[in-house]
Amino acid sequence: MSRTIRFAEAGGPEVLKFMDESVRAPGPGEVRITVKAIGLNRAESMWRNDQYIEPVRFPAGLGYEAAGIVDAVGEGVVGFASGDKVNVIPSFSMNQYHTYGESIVVPEYAVVRHPESLSFAEAASVWMMYVTAYGALIEDAKVGAGDYVVVPAASSSVGLAAIQIANYAGATSIALTRNASKKRQLLDAGAAHVVVTDETDLVDEIMRITGGKGARVAFDPVGGPNFAKLISALSFQGIAYLYGALDERATTLPVLEMIAKVVSVKAHNIWLTSGDAERRKAAVDYVLEGLESGALKPVIDRTFTFEDMVNAHRYLETNGQFGKIVVTV
Amino acid sequence: MSRTIRFAEAGGPEVLKFMDESVRAPGPGEVRITVKAIGLNRAESMWRNDQYIEPVRFPAGLGYEAAGIVDAVGEGVVGFASGDKVNVIPSFSMNQYHTYGESIVVPEYAVVRHPESLSFAEAASVWMMYVTAYGALIEDAKVGAGDYVVVPAASSSVGLAAIQIANYAGATSIALTRNASKKRQLLDAGAAHVVVTDETDLVDEIMRITGGKGARVAFDPVGGPNFAKLISALSFQGIAYLYGALDERATTLPVLEMIAKVVSVKAHNIWLTSGDAERRKAAVDYVLEGLESGALKPVIDRTFTFEDMVNAHRYLETNGQFGKIVVTV
Repeated sequence: MSRTIRFAEAGGPEVLKFMDESVRAPGPGEVRITVKAIGLNRAESMWRNDQYIEPVRFPAGLGYEAAGIVDAVGEGVVGFASGDKVNVIPSFSMNQYHTYGESIVVPEYAVVRHPESLSFAEAASVWMMYVTAYGALIEDAKVGAGDYVVVPAASSSVGLAAIQIANYAGATSIALTRNASKKRQLLDAGAAHVVVTDETDLVDEIMRITGGKGARVAFDPVGGPNFAKLISALSFQGIAYLYGALDERATTLPVLEMIAKVVSVKAHNIWLTSGDAERRKAAVDYVLEGLESGALKPVIDRTFTFEDMVNAHRYLETNGQFGKIVVTV
Repeated sequence: MSRTIRFAEAGGPEVLKFMDESVRAPGPGEVRITVKAIGLNRAESMWRNDQYIEPVRFPAGLGYEAAGIVDAVGEGVVGFASGDKVNVIPSFSMNQYHTYGESIVVPEYAVVRHPESLSFAEAASVWMMYVTAYGALIEDAKVGAGDYVVVPAASSSVGLAAIQIANYAGATSIALTRNASKKRQLLDAGAAHVVVTDETDLVDEIMRITGGKGARVAFDPVGGPNFAKLISALSFQGIAYLYGALDERATTLPVLEMIAKVVSVKAHNIWLTSGDAERRKAAVDYVLEGLESGALKPVIDRTFTFEDMVNAHRYLETNGQFGKIVVTV
């Protein structure tokens, strides 16, 4: 028997229930994993509220990330065998698979070999954050030397990943944070510049940093009224990636300004990268190389136990963390 | 002496004044043209109101398009000589050059050989509309067979150009028009489908036409509250080009829906294409070939005389035309 976390109705963290289940054998192309650690994401909180990008089919499991040990493989699985240390990379619908369980079954395409240098907790934290940032900054925007990359919500795990990846690619990272309390931490985490948006006008400050040119890329999970300011802070032909809607107020475009600067707004998610075999491989290779070289370093804010998942979700929703929340099993 | 139209303050059509000027000799890299016809654009009306993408330096000239005959060339001009029939393609700031005059000086890079099959009035009408649509649909989106292209404000000159170019490329054009009065005309102008937005829900109707898939491209000069509906009518990885702001109300993004479909919103203008020598040549060749083959056919709504420019501008601002307004000199 394995404990699995499920929810039968949308709602707050308290809707999460522990179920004792006998986990099925992996089917063709599937892998069963004994879970050691689970990485938590804002997506799962939206999912639990049934406010995510696809409707929940109840009762539902949840979870995109995990690290653990293979305990059985299904027909046709050739890449992994029982006993292998592995990670799960987000690349499926939570209506089909999930990772919040002591034992889970996932498709082989979502399984990655465990990076030797990482603990299970660290490995459960890296794939959503790095592959999401990689897909926008490297795969699509191809940032490099001379580029400025603006990172709102910089203390989030994906924000910190974006700072590291921008730096790794030779670009200059500009972290945005609301108040000064996290400024020191962001500089220590590698941000070349930190703009405290409660204290200074972000457009003026980014223009000053970029010598009046503006930043080529912004990588934003927030939206809302500040999004137009991000666009004002972009350079000619700049790109604003939008991968979340943390600010639920209207996201309104400064249309004429965008036309004058020929700016693009690209909605972004991890699935385009992780859902395609070739792109996923390139992303995984990039992240493994970055981890190995030390350019990419996991940032874990806090660890909870599996039993404490409800509190872990409560903490997730405070948006106060610096880096990733991980649950150990 | 040549009559040139200028304005010394922002305002309605009545600010346009006729000045008798002796037009200077063309400088290095410039061409002087005796103008026979001028194509009118919404951009010039915004410019006259000083609400365009760059501020007006008063007193200012105006105009992007013209057809006429070269009467002098400056030092270093090798592509054209006195007596050549030529057109002017929009590729400069109206703070530097203009086309509303009996005699005008423009840079050589903005001069195109006159297509033999066209009258001066027709030739003065084609470049803004076709090159603007080409830049988005062909150069950037590379539309072709199997693609659906949604064209709001379809009766405008650029809208009609987009319909023709979508058809020419093998894609399926879906014209949007507010009321049924122009439906027949749009079908006759080549629209594969016409959606009357006052009578039907544009999202439902476009989903019906595309078999539930949505359109890959929308090409919109309007923005405002309907823009979110256009995004809802797009397919997975669809692109909405935004090249105008005819609706001055807020243009608000449906963020989560965009993230789920990985939709891009690309601000667009003609300058990216016409301002680069290589891209401009490809665009001009494409349009000339299309005109020659008969796939692209100029659509002139109404012709005014040069003396009647103030009324031509008034008519331009009714937004009631079907195709281009041309002024003959």
